[in-house]
Amino acid sequence: MAKEPKKLDELFHETLKDIFFAEKKILATLPKMAKAAQTDELRAAFEKHESETEDHVERLEKVFAAIDKKPQGKSCAAIIGITDEGAEIMKDYKGSPALDAGLLAAAQAVEHYEISRYGTLIAWAEELGLDDAVTLLEETLEEEKATDQALTEIAKTAINQQAEAA
Amino acid sequence: MAKEPKKLDELFHETLKDIFFAEKKILATLPKMAKAAQTDELRAAFEKHESETEDHVERLEKVFAAIDKKPQGKSCAAIIGITDEGAEIMKDYKGSPALDAGLLAAAQAVEHYEISRYGTLIAWAEELGLDDAVTLLEETLEEEKATDQALTEIAKTAINQQAEAA
Repeated sequence: MAKEPKKLDELFHETLKDIFFAEKKILATLPKMAKAAQTDELRAAFEKHESETEDHVERLEKVFAAIDKKPQGKSCAAIIGITDEGAEIMKDYKGSPALDAGLLAAAQAVEHYEISRYGTLIAWAEELGLDDAVTLLEETLEEEKATDQALTEIAKTAINQQAEAA
Repeated sequence: MAKEPKKLDELFHETLKDIFFAEKKILATLPKMAKAAQTDELRAAFEKHESETEDHVERLEKVFAAIDKKPQGKSCAAIIGITDEGAEIMKDYKGSPALDAGLLAAAQAVEHYEISRYGTLIAWAEELGLDDAVTLLEETLEEEKATDQALTEIAKTAINQQAEAA
């Protein structure tokens, strides 16, 4: 018997598992990035985002509950690749004036992955009529966008000049 | 003798190699995505972006020339992870009404990776005084953003409803 074709509710659930894995991976990575950062501004930004990421995980748990599923992650090749690139920067640029510029760029790649995923999940949740999920996911999306903006500001004001001038 | 610490010009060059690899990977992936797409709008969007991506590769070649380097890619774990997720969607959702929604989401993850990388490269090129590179990279960034926007429109108007209703 042929399998039933998968529908949007399954795609939503699977993508939720993908971002749940990603958020937990980010939660494990941010303290390492904060420890590696050379400037106070960047370290503080990573620490703030670590605390926000804990909230993102909790909100995702509520979204799983809203669709009557257990919170569960599914290995996400994209976030593994993105965070691996960050780990490579930490290794290759240790002691370099450009380290923070590289860390910041790695963090922005992470943010953009999340912005893309949350944007997608919100559109699908709207289509599926999951109003509570939309609200929860939008709260997180706004924080991801704000983090990306804050990182851009730090790059301009504190990091890139130092990376070049040192 | 200790190695000289790497500086921003090296980080710029290495990140240029990363996005050069990514653009070529995307160029190889887009025809497969266009072939898999079920709706004309999405197929047309992928085909249009394939043609733009050829321009992006050419512009990157000019940026390499601007810093007196040969155009060269460097394996980018992030884009491999992101495109692998797209390939998984093509396999798992073949024949499903949600296929195009999944393909579109995968394409937006790709766009956001590129938006993040080009944003970073532009900031560094400005810092390094590479004016021609800034212009070239900005042209591409605008096209990536426009593609992301166009995909969001297609999701709203043609894809997500079909994924749920079918």
